Amino acid sequence: MSENKILVFGHKSPDTDTICSALVYADLKNQLGEEAEAVRLGEVGAETQYALDYFHAEAPRRVDTVSNETDKVILVDHNEFQQSADDIKDVQILEVIDHHRIANFETEGPLYFRAEPVGCTATILNKLYKENGINVSKKMAGLMVSSIVSDSLLFKSPTCTEEDVQAAKELAEKADINLEEYGLEMLKAGADMSSKSVEQLLTMDAKEFTMGSHTVKVAQVNVVDADDVLSRKDEVLKSMQQEVDSNGYGLFALAVTDILSNDSVLLTSGEQEAAVHSAFNVKLENHEAVLEGVVSRKKQIVPPLTNALS
Amino acid sequence: MSENKILVFGHKSPDTDTICSALVYADLKNQLGEEAEAVRLGEVGAETQYALDYFHAEAPRRVDTVSNETDKVILVDHNEFQQSADDIKDVQILEVIDHHRIANFETEGPLYFRAEPVGCTATILNKLYKENGINVSKKMAGLMVSSIVSDSLLFKSPTCTEEDVQAAKELAEKADINLEEYGLEMLKAGADMSSKSVEQLLTMDAKEFTMGSHTVKVAQVNVVDADDVLSRKDEVLKSMQQEVDSNGYGLFALAVTDILSNDSVLLTSGEQEAAVHSAFNVKLENHEAVLEGVVSRKKQIVPPLTNALS
Repeated sequence: MSENKILVFGHKSPDTDTICSALVYADLKNQLGEEAEAVRLGEVGAETQYALDYFHAEAPRRVDTVSNETDKVILVDHNEFQQSADDIKDVQILEVIDHHRIANFETEGPLYFRAEPVGCTATILNKLYKENGINVSKKMAGLMVSSIVSDSLLFKSPTCTEEDVQAAKELAEKADINLEEYGLEMLKAGADMSSKSVEQLLTMDAKEFTMGSHTVKVAQVNVVDADDVLSRKDEVLKSMQQEVDSNGYGLFALAVTDILSNDSVLLTSGEQEAAVHSAFNVKLENHEAVLEGVVSRKKQIVPPLTNALS
Repeated sequence: MSENKILVFGHKSPDTDTICSALVYADLKNQLGEEAEAVRLGEVGAETQYALDYFHAEAPRRVDTVSNETDKVILVDHNEFQQSADDIKDVQILEVIDHHRIANFETEGPLYFRAEPVGCTATILNKLYKENGINVSKKMAGLMVSSIVSDSLLFKSPTCTEEDVQAAKELAEKADINLEEYGLEMLKAGADMSSKSVEQLLTMDAKEFTMGSHTVKVAQVNVVDADDVLSRKDEVLKSMQQEVDSNGYGLFALAVTDILSNDSVLLTSGEQEAAVHSAFNVKLENHEAVLEGVVSRKKQIVPPLTNALS
C-alpha cells in the first residue's frame, strides 16, 4: 500500500454511523484527489450489514492497529482516544469529523477538527460535500441516510436535530428510497435479538458511567419484540447480578428499547436499584420497569440516573 | 446584563488575532440574532490598538473571570484551558474557532468545534460569514485583515497558507486599504521597542517548553530597529540570567525579529546555550547569533531546538 494513504475510521464496537461515515468520508477525500481508505475497528452489526447490502457497498477492511500501515489518519464519529485504535498516539491525526463531546484528545500540531452538536456524523459529511462542491452519489447518499436513521432511531431520539431531519429527507431522495419504509426495515434488521446469547445482549452496546460515588453500567438493545429478551429474563438477571458482583457496580441496567412503540423496558440489578424509582418515577417490579417514551441512553437515561445517585 | 448573553474571547496575553477575532465573531453572532459580547483577558498591545483605531473599533471589555457574568462562552484563537479564563471549567463552552493544536481541552457535551490548520483564526471566520450568508462590513473586514497580517508577519511566516493570503486580499479590498502599506504600518506600530522596559521585552510574548530533560523559555519581540533591544544587551542578558537561575531553565532565548528583513537576532542564556549551535548551525558570539530568514517561533525555532536538546 502507498505510503501516503490516509486511513479513515470510526470508534470501536462500530455502529452504522461509524461504519458508513468512514466509507463516505473516504469517498469524499478520494474525489478531492487524496488517497484515503476506510477501515473499521470491530465487527459489522446486522443493521449496518443491511444498509451496506442494500446500497451494494463493501464493509471497510478490519484492522486492529493502524501505525503498522500509515502515519496519517482521520477519525470520524469519535475523538476520545480510548474509543479509537489502540496505537492512535503513534500516528498523526489529520482530521476529526464528529458530533460527540470532546475529551481525552490531544495533538502535537494544528489539524482540521469539525465537530457539530447534531445527531449524526453523516449530517456533517453531507455539508462537507456541499462546501467542497462535490456531488453525492446514490450509494453515498444511501449510506448517509442510513446513518441518520440509525443514530436518530428514525427521528424519534431527542438527540435528533432539525438539521438531521432535513439532511435525511434530501439524502433519501438522492438514494431513491422511501425514508420511513427503508428506515424501519433497516432498524428491524438490527433489532432481532432472538438469536443473540445473553452475553451478547449485555455487551453489544454497554457503557460504564461514574454517578456520585457509584460505578453504573447501562446496556441497551433495540428490539421490535421485547419478548426476544424478556422471555429469558431470569437468565439475563442472573448474568447481570454476576457482573455486579465481580465488577462492584452500584447498578447495572439493561434498556430494552422497542423501536416501534418508542418505549423501553428496564431490567436492573445491584444495590442502588432504588435510584430507578426516583430517577423515572416508576415502580420496579421483580427488577423490571417500563419507561414510556424513553429511547436515548445519553439524553433520557444517564442524566436522571446521575441526578438520583449524586 | 442578559442571562442569555454569550461571552466571546481569545487567549491570555492577547495578540491582534485574539482581540480582533473575538470582536468579529461576536459581530457575526449578533447578525445571526444571538446575543454575544466580545471580551478580553489581558492588555491591548500597540499593534492591536493601531488596527482598532484605524477601523474605528472599540477594544473589547476587559474581564478576568467569566462565570460571574454568564454560563455560556465561545473561545476563539485558543482551546488549551491554561491559556483561557481562570474559571473556564465553570461555564459551558458552546463553540471553539481556532487554528492551534488541541490539548488540555474537554467538554461534558457536544459542541461546535471548528479548527483548521491555517495561519490565522480570522481566515476561518471569513469562511463562516460566507457559510452563513452574512455580508462582511468594512470594519469587520479591516479587523480580519489586520489579524492575518499580524499572525503571518505580512505573509512571511511559514505558518501562512495560501488560504490566508487569498482571504487577506479579499478582505483588504472590502476594507478599502492598500494591503502592503497598511500591513507594514500596523506591524511597525507594534514593533517600537525603544519605550519598553527590559522586563516587558522578556515577558510580552514568552512561552515555556519542555525539550528533552530541560525546561526552555523562548521569548520573541518584533522590531523594525533591532538596536531598540541590542543597545541594552548587557542589561537584557543580566535579566535573562537571573530568570535562568531562579527558574532552573536549561536555556532562555530571546528572538529579536526584524519585520523588514525577516531575520532574527537570538540572545541566549543558560547552561544549554551550545544547543543553538547545533540547532541552527550558527556560532554564538557573546551570547548572540543571527538567524537568517527565521521569523516563526512555532515552526522555525522550537522544533530545531527541541531536536538539539532531545
